[in-house]
Parts: sequence; C-alpha cells; structure tokens
Amino acid sequence: MITTGIRLGELVDRFGGQLIGNSETQVIGIAPLNDADERHATFLSNAKLRHQAESTRASALILSEADHQQVGSGYSGARILTAEPYVYFALVAQYFAALKHIPAPKGIHPQASVSPHAVVATSASIAAHVVIEAEAVIGENVVIGAGSVIGRGVTIADESFLHANVTIYDYCLIGKRCVIHSGAVIGADGFGFANQRGAWLKIPQTGRVLIGDDVEIGANTSIDRGALSDTVIEEGVKLDNQIQIGHNCHIGAHTAMAGCVGVAGSAKIGKYCTFGGAAMVLGHLTIADRVHISSGSMVTRSILEAGQYTGFYPLAKNADWEKTAAIVRNLSGMREKIRQLEKTIKSLTEK
Amino acid sequence: MITTGIRLGELVDRFGGQLIGNSETQVIGIAPLNDADERHATFLSNAKLRHQAESTRASALILSEADHQQVGSGYSGARILTAEPYVYFALVAQYFAALKHIPAPKGIHPQASVSPHAVVATSASIAAHVVIEAEAVIGENVVIGAGSVIGRGVTIADESFLHANVTIYDYCLIGKRCVIHSGAVIGADGFGFANQRGAWLKIPQTGRVLIGDDVEIGANTSIDRGALSDTVIEEGVKLDNQIQIGHNCHIGAHTAMAGCVGVAGSAKIGKYCTFGGAAMVLGHLTIADRVHISSGSMVTRSILEAGQYTGFYPLAKNADWEKTAAIVRNLSGMREKIRQLEKTIKSLTEK
Amino acid sequence: MITTGIRLGELVDRFGGQLIGNSETQVIGIAPLNDADERHATFLSNAKLRHQAESTRASALILSEADHQQVGSGYSGARILTAEPYVYFALVAQYFAALKHIPAPKGIHPQASVSPHAVVATSASIAAHVVIEAEAVIGENVVIGAGSVIGRGVTIADESFLHANVTIYDYCLIGKRCVIHSGAVIGADGFGFANQRGAWLKIPQTGRVLIGDDVEIGANTSIDRGALSDTVIEEGVKLDNQIQIGHNCHIGAHTAMAGCVGVAGSAKIGKYCTFGGAAMVLGHLTIADRVHISSGSMVTRSILEAGQYTGFYPLAKNADWEKTAAIVRNLSGMREKIRQLEKTIKSLTEK
Repeated sequence: MITTGIRLGELVDRFGGQLIGNSETQVIGIAPLNDADERHATFLSNAKLRHQAESTRASALILSEADHQQVGSGYSGARILTAEPYVYFALVAQYFAALKHIPAPKGIHPQASVSPHAVVATSASIAAHVVIEAEAVIGENVVIGAGSVIGRGVTIADESFLHANVTIYDYCLIGKRCVIHSGAVIGADGFGFANQRGAWLKIPQTGRVLIGDDVEIGANTSIDRGALSDTVIEEGVKLDNQIQIGHNCHIGAHTAMAGCVGVAGSAKIGKYCTFGGAAMVLGHLTIADRVHISSGSMVTRSILEAGQYTGFYPLAKNADWEKTAAIVRNLSGMREKIRQLEKTIKSLTEK
Repeated sequence: MITTGIRLGELVDRFGGQLIGNSETQVIGIAPLNDADERHATFLSNAKLRHQAESTRASALILSEADHQQVGSGYSGARILTAEPYVYFALVAQYFAALKHIPAPKGIHPQASVSPHAVVATSASIAAHVVIEAEAVIGENVVIGAGSVIGRGVTIADESFLHANVTIYDYCLIGKRCVIHSGAVIGADGFGFANQRGAWLKIPQTGRVLIGDDVEIGANTSIDRGALSDTVIEEGVKLDNQIQIGHNCHIGAHTAMAGCVGVAGSAKIGKYCTFGGAAMVLGHLTIADRVHISSGSMVTRSILEAGQYTGFYPLAKNADWEKTAAIVRNLSGMREKIRQLEKTIKSLTEK
Repeated sequence: MITTGIRLGELVDRFGGQLIGNSETQVIGIAPLNDADERHATFLSNAKLRHQAESTRASALILSEADHQQVGSGYSGARILTAEPYVYFALVAQYFAALKHIPAPKGIHPQASVSPHAVVATSASIAAHVVIEAEAVIGENVVIGAGSVIGRGVTIADESFLHANVTIYDYCLIGKRCVIHSGAVIGADGFGFANQRGAWLKIPQTGRVLIGDDVEIGANTSIDRGALSDTVIEEGVKLDNQIQIGHNCHIGAHTAMAGCVGVAGSAKIGKYCTFGGAAMVLGHLTIADRVHISSGSMVTRSILEAGQYTGFYPLAKNADWEKTAAIVRNLSGMREKIRQLEKTIKSLTEK
C-alpha cells in the first residue's frame, strides 16, 4: 500500500513556516486539536483553544509565534510557526484532500445528451444524464456532475466543477476554477413584471449572468439573469447555500455571503464585503467595499462607509419578548409620556 | 440577413400611444435610458430619471404626458406618449424577445422517459432526461425542460413552460401559460406530524397543489401539497425564487411575492397582495385583498384591512445596534423608571 | 370494485380507543370536521372546534374523553374516545393512505445509470435517470425517485424513500425509513474558507453527513458535509422545506424545524427541540434539549435552559412602524432624557 504521508520537512518546503522539531516525522492528515492523534498535524488559530493545544496528541502543531510562546511543554510534538495558521491549515488540508481525490473520468458519458453544436474539451468530464445545449463551450478539465443542464450558448471556463443537478440557463458565462453545488440555478428569469390594472405583465429577462473566476456557489442557490443588462458576480466571490441574488445585481470581488442571504434586484455590492446568514438587501442599493452585514439584518438604505452594520431583534425568553414587544409597539406613547414629564418638570423648576 | 427592426408607426399600431416624430424611424430593441443608442427605443417610467431622458441617445422615448411636458429639447428623438410607460415598455420588450426566441423542438426527446399511459400533445416539447409518469396529461405547446420529473396523474395545461430540473409530484394541476423555473418543487409533502410521546408520527399528505393560469414560479421555490384538502394558487400569482408555501395555503389571484418569502400552512392570502423579500406569514392566518407586506416582516396575526404593514428591526452601525438592542431587552425597566418619575412628580405637584 | 372501507370495530381493534356506537359501521376515509360526510371518520383535536363537531356529517368522531363530555347530541354518529385524538387521526390517515398507495416498481429502470461497483437490493426501486456511483449501498425496499443522484460510497438503509431529483454527495449515510423530498441536497461542501490577504482559500470539506433512522427532509433543503468531522442528524428529526444546515452541525433526536430555518456551522442542537419557520441559529452555539424557538427569531447565544425563546420585531401598519423604528434607532437618546429627568427630579426633591 502506498503511504499518503508527508514529512514535516517537505511540508515546510512546500508551504513555508518555521519548523521546530524533527523534519523526518511523517503525518498522514490534519485534524482538529482534540481529534488529532500522532498520525496527524493539527493547528491553533484561535487563542481560546490554547489549553487544547497543550493536550493534543498530534505530531505537529501549526501555530503563530505569539501562541508558540504561550503553549507550554504539555505539548511535546513538532511545531510549525507561521503568521497565518488558519491559512496554513487550509493549504495542508488541500494537500491531503488532493491525495485522496478520485478524479472524474474524462469524456462524455454515453447517457449524457450533448448537442453536436456544443464544444466540449476532450479533457472535460461529462457525467450521466447531463444535457449540454447547442453553442455551449465547455473548457479544459471542466467537470459536470450527473443530471446537470447546461443551456444554449453557455460558456464554462477551464477547471470549473459543477456538481450534480446544477442548472445553467442559456448564454450565461462561468469563469475558471468555479465550484457550483447541486441544486444551484444560474440565470433563471429575474422577477420583473409591469402592473396593468392589477394583473402582472411579464418583462422579458434578456440579460445574462456573468460569473468571474474562482467563484463558489452553494447548494440550492439561485442567481437570476438580468432584465436588459447582465447580472455580474466578480472573481473570488463565495456564496453559501440557499442564497437568492436578484436580477442585475453586481457583487464585487471576494465578497462572501453565508447561507440564506437574499439580495434584491439591481443592488450594487462592493468588494471584500461579508454578509452573515439570512442577511437581506433591498433592491437598487449601493454598498461600499469592506462592508460587513451581521446575520439576520435587513439593509434598506445604501451604505457608503465601510464597517459593520446590524439590525435584528434580540432574542429573549418568550414571556420577556412579549413584554418588550408590546412596549415597542407603543414606543411613541412612551416618548409622549417623557415629553409630558419634561414639561411638568420644566414648569416645576420655573416656579 | 433579415432585419428584426420595427417602424415606430407599426409600434403604435400594435401597442397604442401617441407618436410624436417620424413614423418611419426603425428600432431594433429597447434599452434603459443610459444604455440605449440610436437603434433603440427607451422608456421613462420614473420621474427621477428625467435628467437621463434629456441625454439619452435612443431614437424613441416612451413616456407619460406629464413627463413629456418636462423633458426638454435636450432630447430630440421621437416620443411615444402613453398613460403607462412601464406597461408599454413590457409590451415592446415582449415583442423584441419574441423575435429572438428560439422555439423548443416539438416532440419527445429519445432520451426522455414517458409512460405509455401518459397523454402528451404532439405540439408539446419534452426534453432529454424528462420523466412523465402514467396518467399525466401534457397540453398543447407545453415545454418541459431537461431533467424535469412529472408525477403520476399530473395535468399541465396548454402553453405552460417548465424549465429544466423542475419536479411536479403526483396529481398536481398546473394551469395554462404558467412558467416554472428550475429547481422548483410542486407538491412535496406538507410538514404534518402528530407528536406521540416526543416522536413525530407522519400525517399522510393526500391533497394536491392546484395552480391557476398565468402563474409564474421562481427557481428553487417549493409549494407543498395539502394534507387532506388542496393547496391552491390562483391565476396570475407571481412567486419569485426560494419561496416556501406550506400545505393547504390559498393564495389569491394576482398576488406577488418576492424572493425568500415563507408562508406557513393553511394561510389564506387575498388577491392583489404583495410581499417584499423574506417576508414571513405564520400558519392559519387570513390576509385580506390588497395587503402589502414589507420585506423582512413577520405576519403573526390575521390582517383584515388593506394597506401596508411592516415589522423589521432598523439597521444601524453595529456599535449603535448593540446599544439600542441592550435597551430593547430592558424596555420594561425603562417603562418602570418612567412610572416612578410620574409618581414622584405627581407627589411633587400635589405638595 | 373492491371496497376500501373499514368497520369501526376493526379500527379500534387496530388502533385502540373506546368505541361508542355501531361497530359494523364502515368508513372509507378520514376528513376534517367540516368536510366529512357519512362515508368518513373525522376527529376533534382542538377544543375550539367543538361547535363544528356538533354539526359534522361524519359517521365516526375521534375525540378525547373531555371533549366527549362537551359535544352534545347535535352529533349523533359513533364516537371513538382516545387520549390523543390527533395521534389517532394520524394512524387512521396512514391506514387509508396505505390502501391507496401505488408501490414503486421494484428493480432498476433501464434508463438509470448504476455503477457495477454499487450494491442495490433487489427489492429496491431505482427510477429513470437515477445515477448511483461506485461503492454505494442501497438497502431493501428503498425507493429512489427519477433524476436523483447518489454519490460514491453512499449508504441508504432499508425502507428509505427518496423522491425525484434528490442529490446525495459521496460517502453520506442515510438511515432507515427516511423520507427525502425533491431538490434536497445532502452533503454539499460546507462554507469554509481561510482569508488570505482578502481572497478566500478553500478548506476542503472532507467530513460526511450522517442521518439517523426515521428522518424526514423537505424539498430544497440543504445539509452540508462536515469540514474535518461529520455533520450529524439524529433519528426522528423532521426538517421542512428550504432549510439550511451548515457543516458540522449536530441535531438531536426528534427535533423538528419548520420551513426556511437556517443553522450555521458547528451548532449543537438538543433533542426534542422545535424551530418555527425562518428561525436562524448562529454557528458554534449549543442549544439544550426541549428548547423551542419562535418563528423568525435569531439565536445568537447558546441556550442552556429548556423553554420558549422569541425575538422578532412586531408587525404594525407601515406608518406606525416608521414612527417606532425611528424611536428604536434613538433609544439611547430616550434613555439619556430619562436620566436627565431623574437628575432634575432628584435635585427638586432634595431641595
């Protein structure tokens, strides 16, 4: 059997960092502090877990210089010092995951349905029951999972990976090295209707979705195509599951959104933003770079200044909530009482 | 090459409105004020954009009589005056979209799986990897996208369009001219369980989903079948993406819901309502006609009077939110302080 | 034609309860109080509906001893007394649903794609366009609906039922008698990235999803695989539609979550909890057994004590909400005014 271990010396050759300990020690994987055993490397990226580092059984501990000073001799294995232990962990984890990776078989599965007018790189992997429509272009080493449907004129650039049961509507563009998870729908019609005496008249959605390189899109997430112009997701954006992106949105590079976020149409969101789970953004707003929206918060106005913004009702025991909610409903009454008190006191003090 | 342009004279013949300008001018599409060039018509439906209308390069401008009075000679192209410019825009956009539309091929794709006990109109288009179960009836000119699954006894009426990877459970009925987007699930079991000493006993969900004519259902939206009776979506309802409609709901005609809305079981919602994104409705409520619920608001009681209703915590900088949230938690303490003040002042004034 | 009716005597033989009335009376189904006719049994599980019980046309009424005392002679049919009428209803409804159930055909549909390295029980039903990858194990009487994709090394235990277009990623385990609805995605990558100078570096998600026996998972619900260890859903958990469960969550047995709930990564939720629709739970929290979270509420701290917890902004007419929201934004100003008043009064009373 081929060992999948790596010498610590080779680890630091690959990923940098300062090794303190035996460079010949081998590890076969990376595990959390409390799960690791002597076959593993582990990492300390949160100072609150220093006590776990003292007792971990791992053979190698990735940590910062500052934490290194604090973690005592309770831990006797090797150490790898690095400025960014969590990034280092990600790199090592990617290394081990790649070792175990079973590559998808190249070529087109006989039960796929690929238009003769589509162009599919010979290095691409097209699974069973995939549909690829005419004029689609599938790049080198692209993987398209079973049951996925690629519309007419879609381009999927090199190295992108679509899991099973993904749907890409006509003419959308997917960049390089993207990952799209099952159930994601890219390019469905935006929600555009004109109201004519109560009934809704459909506004055709003729724009596209343009997705940059290195974007990840979670399971059951939807990104609508633009109405007249395009919806744009810039490079490096990471979208979790169950997210809704409305038509004509523009999301800046490296912005990340956690699960259940919703962004209404034509919102323009900057770069390097983060959105906590279930945060919501109304339409036609502008959000600057490096804005951070807390979970469960509703953005109703443009935000032009970087920073963290929050707006959700605090949780309480139900009985307490009922009391405070009743007061919230009548806050203007409370304000009025305070005004009355102020008046009365003013008249008292002026006596 | 066949031109796809239309003379302005023909436009007003088709869609009405008063043309001011050369009826022989041709346009080949419609575009927003700031994107349009001389090949395009454009439209002004929001008075705030009048300044853009002055400088648009479009050859034709659709606008209201009132805006016509305000838009000066900075704009020198033709004008089409109409009472409802946004509706007019929708009609013109539909006209151009129809010109570019590539019809789905009629007939059943050889890689589809259609029960011999289903009835499929010869004018219908059934894509690859579709499944149609026994007793299903597929009407004239229906399009069913790749990978969609149509359960036993389902009826899909004439001219409806199902995109790829839609799932319709057994015995549901879909009206005429409906549009259903990818990932939508119609007719899954409602969430019905009886609690027996802590464990949950399933209540079979034996109702159906009945969907009227001209309904549009967004990507990854779910509509549950009824428990004993049916879930009903009346004609003209428009549902955006990622929406959840619980069992036995009844949604009145021409009601529209934006993305991420959730409606719990047995809610009865009127006609001509609108729901902003992520609005939530508890179960067993009644909502009158023409009720408008703001985004992110939670409806916990029946609403019997038309109007707009709102309830979400206002967004603030995180530090400010932390302050106000702490006060909200202790509002009953604040109320008590005010009562004490009132008492003290009363005793002072009575001295 | 074979009758599908059952004698009331046989009903109580099967399901218990005390029959008052003719044991030879037959019923062919169960229906709500106001829909039932003489062919039906009905049930009274909510004392508020006693007046409907007086006028129901059903031939048999399932009710509690207490309600039996209150429902007068307006109702003249048979009665079945039981401590838990709603549970009894579920059992009778299951009985009738089973009579009408059309079993899925056993065996592998010729248009399915099953790896020769998968193990599929001969009693299992594998529909058209299903994909089953290598090393998967499909148990006795399992049903896999059309278009579902079962990844490498997945186990689906006996009697589980997957509806159409379900996706199970590699190496996940599904227990016995589970029900998984269309569009559900089990085992997609968790949302794990390390931030390296603004860009996001993917942390491979190498854990699995482990789902216990008797779990039901709703339409378009997503459950992410763990990062290093597993995501665990214990037996008897019921998840409604459009739910998001982050990586490494642990959900205790018999906990139920209504539609649109979101749970961020590494949350540990106890047994016998309930979550109202659109409730949200932040990551890395612990929630005790028998905690009940109201709809639309955001859980931001661990909850170590059983009970009901709530936190959402109360709905109001929009104009009223605008007033109270403005005050909420300025609650610290109001608190300051009260402090000033207190000071002034103190100085007054000390005079």
